Amino acid sequence: MIKLNLPFHAYLHNKPPTKISTPNNRSWRLLKRDRSFPQTSMATTTKPMKKTSSLHQKWKGSKDQNDFSSLLEPMDPLLRSEVIRYGEMAQACYESFDNDPYSKYCGSCKVPPKTFFQDLGMNDFGYDITSYIYSSNTSNLVPKFFTKSIHSDGPWSPAVNWIGYVAVSDDETTARLGRRDIAIAWRGTVTKLEWYEDLMNFLKPVSAQKLASRDPKIKVMAGFLHIYTDKDQSCMYSEFSAREQLLAELARLTMIYGQKKEEISITITGHSLGSALAILSAYDIAESGLDILDNMRDIPISVMSFSGPRVGNTRFQNRLELLGVKVLRVFNVHDKVPNVPGFFLNEYTSSLARHIFDWTTWFYSHVGEELALDHTKSPFVKTKLALPSKHNLELLLHLVDGYHGKGTEFCLTSGRDKALLNKDGDILKGEYLIPPKWFQVENKGLRKKPNGKWELPEQKGIEDHLRPEDVELHLRKLGLKV
Amino acid sequence: MIKLNLPFHAYLHNKPPTKISTPNNRSWRLLKRDRSFPQTSMATTTKPMKKTSSLHQKWKGSKDQNDFSSLLEPMDPLLRSEVIRYGEMAQACYESFDNDPYSKYCGSCKVPPKTFFQDLGMNDFGYDITSYIYSSNTSNLVPKFFTKSIHSDGPWSPAVNWIGYVAVSDDETTARLGRRDIAIAWRGTVTKLEWYEDLMNFLKPVSAQKLASRDPKIKVMAGFLHIYTDKDQSCMYSEFSAREQLLAELARLTMIYGQKKEEISITITGHSLGSALAILSAYDIAESGLDILDNMRDIPISVMSFSGPRVGNTRFQNRLELLGVKVLRVFNVHDKVPNVPGFFLNEYTSSLARHIFDWTTWFYSHVGEELALDHTKSPFVKTKLALPSKHNLELLLHLVDGYHGKGTEFCLTSGRDKALLNKDGDILKGEYLIPPKWFQVENKGLRKKPNGKWELPEQKGIEDHLRPEDVELHLRKLGLKV
Repeated sequence: MIKLNLPFHAYLHNKPPTKISTPNNRSWRLLKRDRSFPQTSMATTTKPMKKTSSLHQKWKGSKDQNDFSSLLEPMDPLLRSEVIRYGEMAQACYESFDNDPYSKYCGSCKVPPKTFFQDLGMNDFGYDITSYIYSSNTSNLVPKFFTKSIHSDGPWSPAVNWIGYVAVSDDETTARLGRRDIAIAWRGTVTKLEWYEDLMNFLKPVSAQKLASRDPKIKVMAGFLHIYTDKDQSCMYSEFSAREQLLAELARLTMIYGQKKEEISITITGHSLGSALAILSAYDIAESGLDILDNMRDIPISVMSFSGPRVGNTRFQNRLELLGVKVLRVFNVHDKVPNVPGFFLNEYTSSLARHIFDWTTWFYSHVGEELALDHTKSPFVKTKLALPSKHNLELLLHLVDGYHGKGTEFCLTSGRDKALLNKDGDILKGEYLIPPKWFQVENKGLRKKPNGKWELPEQKGIEDHLRPEDVELHLRKLGLKV
Repeated sequence: MIKLNLPFHAYLHNKPPTKISTPNNRSWRLLKRDRSFPQTSMATTTKPMKKTSSLHQKWKGSKDQNDFSSLLEPMDPLLRSEVIRYGEMAQACYESFDNDPYSKYCGSCKVPPKTFFQDLGMNDFGYDITSYIYSSNTSNLVPKFFTKSIHSDGPWSPAVNWIGYVAVSDDETTARLGRRDIAIAWRGTVTKLEWYEDLMNFLKPVSAQKLASRDPKIKVMAGFLHIYTDKDQSCMYSEFSAREQLLAELARLTMIYGQKKEEISITITGHSLGSALAILSAYDIAESGLDILDNMRDIPISVMSFSGPRVGNTRFQNRLELLGVKVLRVFNVHDKVPNVPGFFLNEYTSSLARHIFDWTTWFYSHVGEELALDHTKSPFVKTKLALPSKHNLELLLHLVDGYHGKGTEFCLTSGRDKALLNKDGDILKGEYLIPPKWFQVENKGLRKKPNGKWELPEQKGIEDHLRPEDVELHLRKLGLKV
């Protein structure tokens, strides 16, 4: 893993939002956030900055320092590194998820939070997992997103799936970044594109009032909302919704680092359906969650969205922008998934149609800045790719690595391994002799016991994956539970 | 691995053949073998027998001691163990074969001969590999049997495939068996049943005169004969045919152990297409190869055939019986492969048809004793199996383990692991929570190098897999090369 010397949030959070309202009501439900970030926030970090001063000076002197898009054309090398870093966090969700229906723990995370990155071979990644996030499949709205064991009475509830994690930058990384970064990574679908079909059946927009939204005309995809807000009291892991688990954990973390007077950032990452959850939760956090903690109001929130579908209507988009949430939307122009929902009703629809409908309500809209990549530009990628490969996250990270701006030639910069293109896809040209879809565990996780029998081992430390008592405590503090 | 206390060959080789001719001409090509094995051969072993005396006495006193079929009904427990042992030797060929076209070594054996069994987790198996056998795809008659790397200029010739091995029982096993056992294992097709189609196109019977046969009416499947006899001088590994490699190695080994006055047996094993090669090579060895070494004439030859197709015509069958080669033909009655070639013209064809054709020439015929098993008898096996699973070798070994004779209830005896049913198939009932086709190497063999790049590692010791100079030397001794 390449260690970075620069604070990513320097790019993403320094632009003060316009049209901000600052009501006096401080209730967490009603409060709009004041996002007039001080221009000098980088200087207020409590940690010493290492090796970053010269580059900092460069940006501070630049007139474009607050213009996010100016970092894309041409592509800023440090932004590129950060995009790849957060992409790897999203990729880690796929690699750690137990989606083997023969496993008794199918639906859980295969590795314990304490050794998450190490167990995935991401040594010295610079972050520590603080909490896992789970979702229940109560509504059955996106059935193919969820997976369960064929073992009906196994130790893991078939109603609950591990869906992501919260991690915090360690001291060394914090020093480099210039702030304590709370990263939230949402898992996408491991069952490849089966959910795509589902998605087309569940384009139903519903009001976001389950979240902190006060505007009933803000609508989001029902399926995403359900994954984020459903709960199932029958199981410890789904006693609280993903939303509640996340907000409680953020309350806990921001309190800890707030008391230490550390500068904090929140970065949310996800691929595919995970991108939708990233955007939805970013909205929710910005709109509601953190405002009851007065000293946390200025935490910049940004989203690294990879190959994400649209999440909400144009009102949702407008509101997200107003709240100052920064989204960088990375996608492959040949991938169809970012076009759902909203093949016909979206931000590019003709102005005539826009006049007929109430477009801010009924049109789905993408959010944030675009980083549109094209896999045909890479000389390492096969000429013809199947749909799942075009949607592949590792492909995107490869394209980011070789991107220098529109019209520029593809040229890899970080020395990122080309073999990763075939880790979960069939993308790299055959001449590089890397087998397609090579990521697999030895013997599907079976171990030979001393008696000679092959068995799937018991999962150690699974009881440490969630602390419901913490969730409850912090939900009370947030006023989300009485 | 269960260690056996009894000589398998006590069962298979003690029956003297009938109608044997004993010509005076001792030329290896023309000689017919004298297979009147002494009834007391078990007592002449040069190694002390351990723990076997009581069971030996049992058989010596039995009037059925020479009746092979009497060991099947009811199934003799020690024969069962031996069948499983040789089945595992055939299975080892699948697990060690590099059939990944992305590997530079595709077509070779993944593990070096010195550590073959250990590397496959078969510690203390009791045999040591003495030589690997290779075949070239010169005739292209059974193309799907062969596999090659997509790397056109790799270190391994695309024209050569590893096809089996010769192993010798170690001293401990030799003491248990009562003789030095030379085991020959032939690989079947790893590409599952794709070759089945090929086979149907290559039913062409050809004369076995490429072997030592003097009878032009003895015919065998052209495809099998080609795999066994083709050579390609362009590569060190195919400079000699599989046949020449095998005969040379047997000449070398029998000389070594013959000089030590050890009693020797030859057991040939193979699954599917490997079974065909086992039967073909058994015929060839019996007919020709060893007779130039006077002191080797009495070596009993037996074949453990698993799920094998027919190999030759009725004349071939008759000749094999006359030569005293014992074949135990183990198969699943629901498997279609043992029915090819010869759906219409085979040993069960109506007597009318037999009169119209010269049936000894034009009818394919199975050889040896049948051990017909039925997967529907096992309560552990799924009710519905796909064709490749019905043909699966691990399924057969499971069925052998539970077989006690016709009409008896299925009951596992050795404690053989049920999980092995799903090692390469989808056979075990889901309730046992063993994923189907679980046998796979971590990350398809890719290793992360210190620089962070994933690569297929170089194969170590591949140059030790064959000793062409040995082959040449012993072929000269056999008169097969001048």
